[in-house]
Amino acid sequence: MAVLLADHLRYDFTDPGRAGNDHLIFSKGHASPLLYAMYKAAGAITDDELLTFRRLGSRLEGHPTPRLPWVEVATGSLGLGLPAGVGLAWSGQRLYGSPDRVWVLCGDSELAEGSIWEAFEQAGYEHLDHLTAVIDVNRLGQRGETRHGWDTAAYARRIGAFDWHTIEIDGHDVAAIGRAYDEAVRMSGRPTAILARTLKGRGVAAVENAEGAHGKPLPDPEEAIAELGGIRDIRVRVQVPAVAAARREAITAEHGHVSLPRYPRGEKVATRTAFGDALVALGAARDDVVVLDGEVSDSTRTEGFASKYPDRFFECYIAEQQMVAAALGMQARGLVPFAATFATFFSRAFDFVRMAAISRANLKLVGSHAGVSIGEDGPSQMGLEDLALFRAVHGSVVLYPCDANQTAALLATLAAGRGIGYLRTTRGGTPVIYPPGEAFPVGGSKVLRSGDADRATIVAAGVTVHEALAAADALAADGIAVRVIDLYSVKPVDAQTLRAAAEATGSFVTVEDHWPEGGIGDAVLAAFANGHQPPRVTKLAVHTMPGSATPAEQLHAAGIDAKAIEAAVRTLVDAGQAGAG
Amino acid sequence: MAVLLADHLRYDFTDPGRAGNDHLIFSKGHASPLLYAMYKAAGAITDDELLTFRRLGSRLEGHPTPRLPWVEVATGSLGLGLPAGVGLAWSGQRLYGSPDRVWVLCGDSELAEGSIWEAFEQAGYEHLDHLTAVIDVNRLGQRGETRHGWDTAAYARRIGAFDWHTIEIDGHDVAAIGRAYDEAVRMSGRPTAILARTLKGRGVAAVENAEGAHGKPLPDPEEAIAELGGIRDIRVRVQVPAVAAARREAITAEHGHVSLPRYPRGEKVATRTAFGDALVALGAARDDVVVLDGEVSDSTRTEGFASKYPDRFFECYIAEQQMVAAALGMQARGLVPFAATFATFFSRAFDFVRMAAISRANLKLVGSHAGVSIGEDGPSQMGLEDLALFRAVHGSVVLYPCDANQTAALLATLAAGRGIGYLRTTRGGTPVIYPPGEAFPVGGSKVLRSGDADRATIVAAGVTVHEALAAADALAADGIAVRVIDLYSVKPVDAQTLRAAAEATGSFVTVEDHWPEGGIGDAVLAAFANGHQPPRVTKLAVHTMPGSATPAEQLHAAGIDAKAIEAAVRTLVDAGQAGAG
Repeated sequence: MAVLLADHLRYDFTDPGRAGNDHLIFSKGHASPLLYAMYKAAGAITDDELLTFRRLGSRLEGHPTPRLPWVEVATGSLGLGLPAGVGLAWSGQRLYGSPDRVWVLCGDSELAEGSIWEAFEQAGYEHLDHLTAVIDVNRLGQRGETRHGWDTAAYARRIGAFDWHTIEIDGHDVAAIGRAYDEAVRMSGRPTAILARTLKGRGVAAVENAEGAHGKPLPDPEEAIAELGGIRDIRVRVQVPAVAAARREAITAEHGHVSLPRYPRGEKVATRTAFGDALVALGAARDDVVVLDGEVSDSTRTEGFASKYPDRFFECYIAEQQMVAAALGMQARGLVPFAATFATFFSRAFDFVRMAAISRANLKLVGSHAGVSIGEDGPSQMGLEDLALFRAVHGSVVLYPCDANQTAALLATLAAGRGIGYLRTTRGGTPVIYPPGEAFPVGGSKVLRSGDADRATIVAAGVTVHEALAAADALAADGIAVRVIDLYSVKPVDAQTLRAAAEATGSFVTVEDHWPEGGIGDAVLAAFANGHQPPRVTKLAVHTMPGSATPAEQLHAAGIDAKAIEAAVRTLVDAGQAGAG
Repeated sequence: MAVLLADHLRYDFTDPGRAGNDHLIFSKGHASPLLYAMYKAAGAITDDELLTFRRLGSRLEGHPTPRLPWVEVATGSLGLGLPAGVGLAWSGQRLYGSPDRVWVLCGDSELAEGSIWEAFEQAGYEHLDHLTAVIDVNRLGQRGETRHGWDTAAYARRIGAFDWHTIEIDGHDVAAIGRAYDEAVRMSGRPTAILARTLKGRGVAAVENAEGAHGKPLPDPEEAIAELGGIRDIRVRVQVPAVAAARREAITAEHGHVSLPRYPRGEKVATRTAFGDALVALGAARDDVVVLDGEVSDSTRTEGFASKYPDRFFECYIAEQQMVAAALGMQARGLVPFAATFATFFSRAFDFVRMAAISRANLKLVGSHAGVSIGEDGPSQMGLEDLALFRAVHGSVVLYPCDANQTAALLATLAAGRGIGYLRTTRGGTPVIYPPGEAFPVGGSKVLRSGDADRATIVAAGVTVHEALAAADALAADGIAVRVIDLYSVKPVDAQTLRAAAEATGSFVTVEDHWPEGGIGDAVLAAFANGHQPPRVTKLAVHTMPGSATPAEQLHAAGIDAKAIEAAVRTLVDAGQAGAG
């Protein structure tokens, strides 16, 4: 890292957003003291700040986060930094003509993570020659020796098979390190992995190459300082990018007007299709929007964007972790990435979504094929836990449209906002119930049926909105008035409307195409969890493991169709539990 | 598959549990019609049942599940079958002397999944020569050509680099297929990958090697039948295992008495340490218990088991997906696997946990380092979403002990039960408050403070139980009596005790070291979500993104320490909102 900082990195520490700046990612985030020492050497932070390491309030956390302006991606979950670096290098090559290089410091232990091999495959396949992985082969993982110890050839054979250029060096030989960086920079058409054989804790006898010393303070820091040559105050003048490499002209900060698709009321359109249509419209208006897909663009409906804007479409094949990590890397450049796959397959990449929240990332994720309503394909393809997962992401927005116009509007809303947003779409067609142009703010809801005599409230979202409306109509025909709320914003939730409904109608039936835990029912109840009196709630959700069946049979078997909602309302009302509570 | 079934598979379809049976896993689960056709050819299912494919109630689902007795692992999420097969082969080699072989049919598209490369690495490293991957290189993924098309050499180079034996064949050449299987069976010391170049939809002109035909019915099935040679009724006599390969003598169905560790009250012990101690005790009593870890056994505390029972300890290095999948494979043999890593790193393998539920698996997962209470390492290492994730697993049990004796008891309970169980442990020491030997049934809770004059109820679990007790004591000293419930069973939740407390005390404060979504607060409210009147609830949880700080500072900053609980109760009581509601 010293050689990199002194001789190869091009970075303006006074202007982290400067075009042409290189990117340095510590995939081994636990090496944060080294990263912070580099910042100190570069003059970016002071001695005093360095000594706040891991203390309350310090931005020098145990693992690096973008609370520091020079950190683009939070790391600390191993196996993330390299695939995120792929996202930076890939978008750099494709959209900016590679004015910058991406340097990723990896540990040897983390080469066991499959996400690292997704990254090797993607980067080799895309010829990302501006990406360099520096792999610290120090032989020791957290609890002992790694699989391959110091056998850098074992790693080189594997990484080379993925069409990378590999260089094996003694990681303490400064001249060899310099030559390796030179070679990596000269390399054309292939990314480079520098496999550096090192001694962990080198130069401090008490811990050098010792097991059981990982993550522990030195037994005698004064002695260690003396062994390492005494207190020094090394300053490094880091080279700034030679020319202010301009952003590719086509990518501008200005956005045109988004001409969203318009669907006539009553037509049946799948929300995934509306998402795909709206994404094309968004792509026309904003050239900072990029789209990633996990080889299911015909299902998620990103294929329209892919054919219209092939430069801005990134095919990640079936590698959801790499997809989310690449999106994370791309948003670090200021791009607005939308990544799409089946709702349930985001569970594959959930650790990276979690880490994206720590990165304070601007990331839009779109999951199709939500719930049992997909029908015959069975439970492995059904998103039945995605609301629980995405609700549990810090600061996230979770949206679940029920019709095509709502989907288009919510997509535009997602693009306009910052942070991690999730949009849940449905496989089958649902009737258009909202007029084109209707507004759907984040944190809002729509009251679709309402009257003074309402005896209960049905809260639904997505596919169950239509079941709820059918149930309400059947009940109304029988003289039972109920309120219906379309809770399209699952997080943040419209607490005000829910509280008003609780006061007016007393009892709730929540209904969702999702497991009972963590979804709409829990979100509704949580709206009262700051001391407000919650209503009585009957929660309808998927309580049994589905199999194969038609969509209608699935909704019926799960007890979330109109009939089940109607029965639940009748039970509440008959029990005399309805009415202002 | 026809050649395998006729000549190489050793399997007794009349006795799926027969010792020595081979294992056949369709990692490409969407090829289920082929699997079911094999069952039909083997005489295991009838023509009539075959025609129930994907219909309501049929066990022939869109993707295979263990509702069929010959399916050991549900598939349909790509990249799972091979790592699960590694679990079967690894435990077979280590504990049973490899009486059986594991055959895994993989798609070429799924080779993009990192989990597949975790499996290649693990299997090559462990010399699992009884494992054979048959890779259907048909060139076409769901939405078009794969990365490497028909370039089987590209795959062979990669897979070979992971120390597998590879064979490239024409996948329609029956003689070549037979030779490849023979070679795989003879191979010693290395697993074998057979890369079979195939034509997707071969023999049916309308779809052969055609894009856009994936997952769609044939345009003209009658014509296709004619092209394929007309209606036939092929029967295959599948060979049964030559000898009833006995289970290794040491592995018995009988269990000895578990002598759990006993901790004196008042001592400070980390629940992760108690877990590690109890695991050793469990290992002594039951030789069907196996343990897997993701190279953090010094942190999770599985290291005690590892050193005492090295045969039954499986080091997965930092490959959480492979770890969970291996555990899934091992439980298919009747073993009882415990897999451990940091709580938050299970988010890496969550898709496989989800799939394990579809597999009706018996799987025990233990996550350490829960919550902000870990202290300085920062948010990347904190399990703050694990309760939400594991609650959203169908049929799961979620346990969260607060002291050492409770941890030991809950571990024994987990081992005795079936299904997916999750145990959440804490990094730092917590005081022992329960006597050794106390019972903690699944679905129970402990009322730690209770009186007729209780004006509110505090519901806590794990580390916050101790904060809750401190708050209750401070409030009691001020004349405010409160009930305290230790909700160690987060799922299923003790609805009866919670409802009684709601009736008696009117208001709840829930407090958890977790994000506000999907954890203890939501679990408490959900206990009322079948039409019961919920109490007023103030939910204390981690609402802001933590940084680095000491454990005590973290609890304070998150607003989940004794002081915050005390303040929340006072607010509820002062507002006159307490009292029977």
